[in-house]
Formats: sequence, C-alpha cells, structure tokens
Amino acid sequence: MAGPIPLSPLALKLPALPAVAGVRLAVGEAGIRYHGRADVLLAAFAEGTAVAGVFTKNVCPGAPVTWCREVLPGGTARALVVNAGNANVFNGVAGQRAVEATAHAAAKALGATPEEVFLASTGVIGEPMPAQKIVAVMADLSARLGGSNLADAARAIMTTDTFPKAAARTARLGGVEVSIAGIAKGSGMIAPDMATMLAFLFTDAAIPAPALQAMLAKGVDHSFNCITIDSDTSTSDTVLLFATGQAGNKPTDDPAHLGDFRRALGEVLHDLAMAVVRDGEGAQKLVKITVDGAVSNHSAKKIGMAIANSPLVKTAIAGEDANWGRIVMAVGKAGEPADRDRLAIAIGGVWMAKAGGVVPGYNEAPVVAHMKGREIEIEVDIGLGQGRATVWTCDLTHGYIDINGSYRS
Amino acid sequence: MAGPIPLSPLALKLPALPAVAGVRLAVGEAGIRYHGRADVLLAAFAEGTAVAGVFTKNVCPGAPVTWCREVLPGGTARALVVNAGNANVFNGVAGQRAVEATAHAAAKALGATPEEVFLASTGVIGEPMPAQKIVAVMADLSARLGGSNLADAARAIMTTDTFPKAAARTARLGGVEVSIAGIAKGSGMIAPDMATMLAFLFTDAAIPAPALQAMLAKGVDHSFNCITIDSDTSTSDTVLLFATGQAGNKPTDDPAHLGDFRRALGEVLHDLAMAVVRDGEGAQKLVKITVDGAVSNHSAKKIGMAIANSPLVKTAIAGEDANWGRIVMAVGKAGEPADRDRLAIAIGGVWMAKAGGVVPGYNEAPVVAHMKGREIEIEVDIGLGQGRATVWTCDLTHGYIDINGSYRS
Repeated sequence: MAGPIPLSPLALKLPALPAVAGVRLAVGEAGIRYHGRADVLLAAFAEGTAVAGVFTKNVCPGAPVTWCREVLPGGTARALVVNAGNANVFNGVAGQRAVEATAHAAAKALGATPEEVFLASTGVIGEPMPAQKIVAVMADLSARLGGSNLADAARAIMTTDTFPKAAARTARLGGVEVSIAGIAKGSGMIAPDMATMLAFLFTDAAIPAPALQAMLAKGVDHSFNCITIDSDTSTSDTVLLFATGQAGNKPTDDPAHLGDFRRALGEVLHDLAMAVVRDGEGAQKLVKITVDGAVSNHSAKKIGMAIANSPLVKTAIAGEDANWGRIVMAVGKAGEPADRDRLAIAIGGVWMAKAGGVVPGYNEAPVVAHMKGREIEIEVDIGLGQGRATVWTCDLTHGYIDINGSYRS
Repeated sequence: MAGPIPLSPLALKLPALPAVAGVRLAVGEAGIRYHGRADVLLAAFAEGTAVAGVFTKNVCPGAPVTWCREVLPGGTARALVVNAGNANVFNGVAGQRAVEATAHAAAKALGATPEEVFLASTGVIGEPMPAQKIVAVMADLSARLGGSNLADAARAIMTTDTFPKAAARTARLGGVEVSIAGIAKGSGMIAPDMATMLAFLFTDAAIPAPALQAMLAKGVDHSFNCITIDSDTSTSDTVLLFATGQAGNKPTDDPAHLGDFRRALGEVLHDLAMAVVRDGEGAQKLVKITVDGAVSNHSAKKIGMAIANSPLVKTAIAGEDANWGRIVMAVGKAGEPADRDRLAIAIGGVWMAKAGGVVPGYNEAPVVAHMKGREIEIEVDIGLGQGRATVWTCDLTHGYIDINGSYRS
C-alpha cells in the first residue's frame, strides 16, 4: 500500500458523545509505530468503578489479553491504557514484562494498584513492544486527564481504520438517567470471536461487576460475534465495559430493573459493530445476511457465517453480481442441515430462488439495481425449522489485497 | 474480467500421457456456454470396467453428483460424459431430467444401460441445463471415439482453468505393467472436501470395485483433501476412477499385491491436486504448509488448513511479506490445542520464531529472498505431540478478485 488507505465509502460521522461522569481521558504520542498522531490512550476511572470484559478465543492471545484475564476477577478498575501500532503478541517473557511495566506506571501515576489497570494493544504481531515509550509519556498523560473527549480517544486507537468509531445512548435505571458511551477500532482480522477489534464502553451507572459481565457477554454475542470481515480471528480482541457508578442510581443487579440499560448497551454494541464492518478493509458494500428456517438459531448463525465468509460470495458482491448460485454453495458447505429442494434465496427483498430452482418469471432488474447500492440484503430460508440469525459482513475487493499485501512495509 | 484470464505463472506443461487400454475418448462442441472450443467429453469403457468415486460433501450437490451416487453401487461403468460451462446445480426437477436425458443418450449410443453412465458438470450454478445440446452431439461423439487423447479431454473440461491438467504413472501388478492416467480441472471454489474440482482417472488394471473404492478414498484424502484455494466447497466435486481390466493382470483385491498400484495412484492424485493449486484463481505462488508436533495428525491438518485459508496469511504471501505474526494468529484460531510459548515457525527453512518469540539474531535476508520465489514453504512446530500434516494452497491476489468479481458477466 503505497499511499494512505482511502476513507471507506461506508464511513459514518461520529455521533454526539456525552461526557461520562467518573471517566477522565487523555491521549498522547508515544511514537511506537506512528508518528505525528496520538497512539496511546489513558482512561482514569473514579474509585469503585466496576468492570466487565470479553476477550478473543484465539489460543495464542497477546500479553495484554492474558493480563486482563488475570485481573478481571478483581471486578474493579481505575485505569485503562491502550496503544496502537504494536499488538504485543508473541513476544514471550518480554511481552509479559512490557504489560507489567505499563500497568505499574499507570498505577503509580494514578495512585492505584497495577491489578486495577486494564491494558489493550493493537497493531503488528511479533515485534518487541517498547513499553518504555508508553511509560515515558504516562506522567504527561495523567497530568492532562480531563473532560471526556471520546472522539480523540477513538482516533488514538486506530490502526488500519479509516474513520473513528463511537456510539452513545442513555437509559433509565432506578429512576435516574444514565449514559453509555463506547469507542471501537477494527477493520481487518475481524471474525467472531471476535475481531482485531478493541471496544471500550463507559457508563456512569452503578451496576455490580457480575451483572455487568453477564450483560456484556450477551450483548457481544449479538453484536461483535455476528460480524465477520475476513474470517481471521485476532489474538488481541478485547471488549471492556467500565461502570463508574457516578450517576446516582441505587446499585442494582436485578434483571427486572436492568431492561432499559440492557437495551441501550445492546444498541451501543450494535452501532460499534456496524462501524467496524463499515470500515472492513477494502469494503465497498455493507452486507446483511438473514438466515431463517434453520433447525436452530445456532445452525442459522453457522450458515449465515458460511455465506458471510465465502470469498466467492464476497467477490460476487464486489462485482455487483447477484450470483445466488454461490449462496447455494455456501449454504451447502456450512456443515449444517439443509435441503437443496427446500432452499429459498432473496436479494434486496426479491425472492429469486425457491424450492430448489429459479422462481418462474423472476425479474432480475430490481435485484441488479439493489446490487449497485452500498447496502446489500441477503435473505435465506432453509425451510426446515424456526432457527433464525442475522450476521453482517462486507464485500471482498482489490482494496483488501492492497491493504494486507503490504501492511508491514 | 474484461479479457481472458492470464496463464498462471505456476502452470505446468502436460506430461506424456499413455493410451489406456479399454478407454476410448472423444470431445466435441455442444455450445452450452463456450463457443469455438470443445466443452463436452465422452469416454467409453470396455465391458467389465470397474468404477470407484468420491464426491463433494456439500449438502446442496449438483444433479450429476446425485446421479453418480445413485449408480455407483453398481460398480461397473461403460461411459463418462462431462460438460463445462453449466454445473447443473440448483435446477430442481429440471436438473434431474437433464442428467437422465444425458445418461440415456450415452447409453443408447454405446449399447449400455443408463446406470452404467457416469456424469459430471462444471460451470455456473443455478442456470437451466440445456441437456438437449449434449444429446444432439452424442451420435457424433460416439462415432469419433478412439485412441486415448487425454490432452484434448483435459482441455474440454476446463472452465476458469488457465492450463490443462493431467498426470500418469505405471505400476507393477501381478507381474504385469499397468497404466494409470488422469485428468483434472479446477481453479476456484476449491477446498476440501474437495473443490470445484473434477478428476477422472483411467487404468487398464483389473481390480474389483470395492478395492478400487478403498484405494481411491484414501488417495483423495492425502491429495485433493489436502489442498485449498479459497475455502469454498463446490457443489460438484467429483473424482472417478475407472479400471478397464485390459492389462491382463489377474484381478486382485489383495492389499499385499496392490502396494505398487496404490503408490502410483497416490502419485497421479498428488500431481493432479498440485496442478489444481498451481491454477488457483489469481495464484502467483504455490504454498506448502507442514505442521508438526500437533496432538494428532487430524489436529495438524486442521491447523494447516486454518493457515492455508487465512486471507491475511495469503495476502501477506502475495505481498512477499514474511509476516509470521499472521501465522501465529491462524494457528491460534484453528480451534486446536496449541501453546503460544511452545510454537515455532519457519519460512523457507529458516526458523524465525521459537518458544513464543523471535529467534535471537534471526536474519531476515534469506527469508525475504525465499518470499520472492514462486514456491513458498512454511513449517510450523506446535511442540505438543507427534501429529503431522502437509497441506497446499496459493496466495490471494488481485487476480482472484478480477476473476470472481465478474465471472457471470
């Protein structure tokens, strides 16, 4: 990739983002890989902040993921440090020492313990992590903590992202209005579970860590775990949710009281996941795939992901070709129950294939027009049961090859 | 794809191909999709020809696959009809009628029963199959049957292939020299089990169908089921092996006597599988991935396939980037036992990563040189057990997008 990566045509503008009480932010230039831009984020949290986290299922995780898994059971957080440019993955003992050095530096700067510091890194795998560059800017970062400039934070964690990603909602909780705001990065190595995807959510609600964890895990399952860009699962995927408890609601873990919060959390997660797909490396089209009539929801999701990960389906979409034959192929290779002669396929709301063959008199014109748009809708009815799932992906284009054929050079 | 697909830089020339006693061939122009080239192959076999077959595991198979599965238990074959340009997949009852019409026409022309006629089709999915175009040329084809021009046969079954694929060996069987010759096509929608991949093998050996079937299934497992181009599994994959029994050996199914035949069959299958990978859509490099030290051979193969199917690994290879971090990622996402801190990775014979980190003093120069070549070797040692597997793939390039972004247009 000779020049900069062009802005995704599916990019979204940042929404209005609230200051979340109990969250202070600062970004700085550690110069780990990028120069002339912020590449490190420090977030400081009020005392008593609860934390929940969900991490990659890749069995070769980065050192920061290992660190977070170890400290998460403590349930409280005072700081988050994120850097872009080096993922600190596959660095052996040196990688472990790098996370320890960073956690200690942040703890010292904020008067916390290292176990209250959460870490995430994104970027190249297998290059030594110069933690001293982060440690060197820690005092400056902590001195500049303030406000809640989430937009700057969203920019500081970008790698191959072409636009910053953030979302926010409010919810009613115990008669009080609470805020949830989140930022995310990610555009390649994106597949469930989960993606080269980092997402950090902040709320002023008072919710104990176990209830927070349950809601986050379920919310991620319906958002980040329903997207795929390239079927590759990062070693660094991290979603963290911090609840500062500053909104003044009575702390609660009663599911009956948490309904509106759960809705708002789900919406923030969905928005962030969609922003990641919209910034899929080389993406020109956002693709929504709904599978119905499978033998179970789990089966429907597996079929949806087989379609979403098929290079032949994705290149057909890039070529604006309503090639439903390739969708048939992808359904058949998913390894899930399906019957060629009950299968139905629609693109852009037009059912083109039913009961094992082309719909008689099928008019391709509206489908051709739909394929030229930015948002493609594919529906598949397996015809066997009630299982249903929706997944999202993007097309596979020359841009993906450009970006990934020379990422390190 | 505006112009013709350029010849793969990994293309091989056709080897010398023997006439196989008991096999007569003819190719013709049915004009199903292509014009000005042969697109249909008729092979006629001597009476008493035994047959074995292995087919796609895609649960939405084409009508010809369903037909072959139904007639295979008969164990005998008199004819094979193959067409290129239309896969006759997802055509419902009309697709079934098309295979019946073709089988009946070939049976009539050759004085056989329809159940002794094997069929395969490759090309676009979901377009009505004009069987009458094949039926119309059948009398002419059968009148021209003769010799054993395997090179013409290999050309007649090509679709997006850029070069014809064939291989041959001889073997000693019961004191007699027997021949095995095979042709194949396939260049995309290639993944185990197996590929948009058709392969037809012919031998003059006398071997009963059950023994033939056992050897073919095992041979396919070590050849076609060890290659992947794009992780997509075709609806039409078919490998058929016809044994005419004309060599004069005493028919045998004794494994102790079949060793040399099994070796030769394995070599023909391996050659054909390598030819398919070398013609991977857009391929610029052939990639051999050997995984050692996994907990089992099965686990080693799953890890190898995770690496071989990773778009990020494949684009890195296209960019001549020895990005072993992406190999670590792919190992970790395979869902198989692995330990980050025991993993070792070599490219071009140079061990660059060991025990969870970069090898001290690792010199990238010979690896950079290796990455510029046409044949890339990746070795991974999981460090947990004795499991071993080798798989082959190609890189992911702009050419793949070119070919698949506009296949139908």
